Amino acid sequence: MAYSDRAFGNAGALPQTTGADAAWSTFARSQRVKTQRLAEHDAVFYEGDPADRVYELIEGAVMLFKLLPDGRRQVVEVVAPNALFGIVAGALYDCNAETLTPSVVRILDRRELEASNEYQGHVAECLREQIERLHDHAVLLGRKSAFERVASFLMRFVPKRGVPGCLGPQNGKDEQVIELTMTRQEIADYLGLTIETVSRVISDLKRRGLLSIERQDRIRLTDVCGICRLTGAH
Amino acid sequence: MAYSDRAFGNAGALPQTTGADAAWSTFARSQRVKTQRLAEHDAVFYEGDPADRVYELIEGAVMLFKLLPDGRRQVVEVVAPNALFGIVAGALYDCNAETLTPSVVRILDRRELEASNEYQGHVAECLREQIERLHDHAVLLGRKSAFERVASFLMRFVPKRGVPGCLGPQNGKDEQVIELTMTRQEIADYLGLTIETVSRVISDLKRRGLLSIERQDRIRLTDVCGICRLTGAH
Repeated sequence: MAYSDRAFGNAGALPQTTGADAAWSTFARSQRVKTQRLAEHDAVFYEGDPADRVYELIEGAVMLFKLLPDGRRQVVEVVAPNALFGIVAGALYDCNAETLTPSVVRILDRRELEASNEYQGHVAECLREQIERLHDHAVLLGRKSAFERVASFLMRFVPKRGVPGCLGPQNGKDEQVIELTMTRQEIADYLGLTIETVSRVISDLKRRGLLSIERQDRIRLTDVCGICRLTGAH
Repeated sequence: MAYSDRAFGNAGALPQTTGADAAWSTFARSQRVKTQRLAEHDAVFYEGDPADRVYELIEGAVMLFKLLPDGRRQVVEVVAPNALFGIVAGALYDCNAETLTPSVVRILDRRELEASNEYQGHVAECLREQIERLHDHAVLLGRKSAFERVASFLMRFVPKRGVPGCLGPQNGKDEQVIELTMTRQEIADYLGLTIETVSRVISDLKRRGLLSIERQDRIRLTDVCGICRLTGAH
C-alpha cells in the first residue's frame, strides 16, 4: 500500500488528455471566456461571496484558505496551473482565494458551466484530483509530526521524486533548488503549524546538512533522499 | 464571514433536485446497477486496489481512511447516505473504505459512468459537496484544539443546529440524543487525536454538565448551545 503526497509545485497538470479535455479546451479558449491578470497577494474572492464564477489558473499560484472567527487561518489548498478553483456546492464561496505570486486566471461563468453536461467531465476530473490531494493533506494535518509535514511540503516541489516510480538520485548529485512562493507564515498556515515551528524545523534541516537557504523563498535541497526519508511516507 | 462545519450525520442528502439528479436516478435504478449488503466493519475496497467501481451509499455509514507505513491511520471522510465514494483521479483507489455500521451500497461501473457526460453533472455535484467538507475538515485538523474538534464532531449529529440559519433551542429544552456509529478509536483517527484525548474531552464535557453517556456509542447532549460554543466557530 504505497502512500505518496501528490506534488502541487509541478504536477498540477491533468494526467492525460481525454475527450472531456478537448471539449474543455475549445470552451476555455472561446471568445466568451475572459482572462484576468493579478498581482501578488491579490484577493480573487472571499468566503461568503456569491459563487457565480469559476476560475482556472493559467499562470502563477493561488492559495485557498479559511478563517476562524478569532483569526486563526488554515490554508486548505494551493492551486497549481491548469486547475479549476472556486467550484462550490452552494451559492457562496466556502473559502477565500488569494494569489501567492503574480498570476493569470481564466474567469468562467458558473451557470454556463453547470448547464453544459459537455464540460462536466473535465470539471469532475479536476475535482477528483483535488479530492485526492485533500485526502493526503488530511493525513499530513491529522497524523504527521512537524518534521514530516515540512519534509512533505518540500518534497512537493521536487519533480518525480518521492512518488511511485521514483528513480532516486541521478548522476551522483541529489540536489534540487526550489522556489517556495509562500512566506513562512503561509507555509505554517498550510501545514497547521506555527511560524516558529516551521522556522525551527527548516533551521534544523539546514544544521543536519539536508538543505541550504539561498534566499527567504529559495531553498537548495542538498540531499533529496534524506528529506524524503523524513516525510513519514517510508 | 460565517464559518460552519457541515453535518455528515444527517445532512448527507444533496441540496436540491436538478436535471442531473433526475438523469442519475434513472441510471442508478437501472437493471445494470447492482446493490450489495455489507456488515459492520466490512472492507469495501483497499488503497491501491484497481478503482474500477464507484459506490453510492444507500444505507448505513462508511469511513474512508489512509494509513501511513508505520500504521498511523487518518480517517479522511465519513460518507453519509446518498453520497458517492470511490471516485478517484487515477487507476487505483487512494484510500481504504470500510463500513461503520451494516450498510447497503450501489455498485456502479466506473467506465460506464465516465463515458457518459449525462451523469457527470451529478458526479460533479457530489464531489463539490465533498470538497467543501474536506476544506472544513482541514480547518478542524490544522487549527482547532482538541475540545473544539470533539465539540465540532458532536455538533455534526445535531440537525440544523450550529449552521447558518440555526434557530437555537426550541421549546425550552436544549437536548439531543446522538448515535455515534464510531468507536472512540475511529473518532480519534478522524479528529487527528489520540483515543485518550477523545475520552478525556468527553469525560470533561460530561463533568461540565454538557452531555451524558447513555451507552458507549449513544450520547445525550444536554446543552446543545453549550457544546456549539466550544466548536471554535463562534
